[in-house]
Amino acid sequence: MPTQLEIAMDVMIRTFHRYSCREGDRFKLSKGELKMLLQRELTEFLSCQKDPELVDKMMQDLDANKDNEVDFNEFVVMGAALTVACNDYLVEQLKKKGK
Amino acid sequence: MPTQLEIAMDVMIRTFHRYSCREGDRFKLSKGELKMLLQRELTEFLSCQKDPELVDKMMQDLDANKDNEVDFNEFVVMGAALTVACNDYLVEQLKKKGK
Repeated sequence: MPTQLEIAMDVMIRTFHRYSCREGDRFKLSKGELKMLLQRELTEFLSCQKDPELVDKMMQDLDANKDNEVDFNEFVVMGAALTVACNDYLVEQLKKKGK
Repeated sequence: MPTQLEIAMDVMIRTFHRYSCREGDRFKLSKGELKMLLQRELTEFLSCQKDPELVDKMMQDLDANKDNEVDFNEFVVMGAALTVACNDYLVEQLKKKGK
């Protein structure tokens, strides 16, 4: 039986492909697919974000090879960066509480 | 309610801290903690690996700042690399099948 960590990695892969297969290259996210993924799958993380240009900015940041699409490697970098940001916040809170 | 992707990111954070708090710096994995995490949490992924020096090699690869410990950022890089490897394998299989 897979562990929680293995399931988490599987979720990253499945989530990406659920959106990447909708239009164009089925192994890459177009801007529209990325926007839909962010809005539906990172609702809580992004709920405090009110920047209307957020998707454009994220697309520019993530699209390392400038082909106007986000491949899986670029998507994983986003997931990693968000997870590190959440962890930094958590550690800061724990240190403040002296735990 | 958090989405599956948000839960996956949370699992990464919780898994790391469950092992990092055992000895030494509680926000970093020692070699012993990393070994325990790999053996218990990545059982399926690593089941085909028989290299007795695997943990030493992974420690060297992951420990970017050479302090002989793995911090959360370095751990996330490992998770990202493994996930990309799994995805590459999946995509290759899908392309072979012509799906």
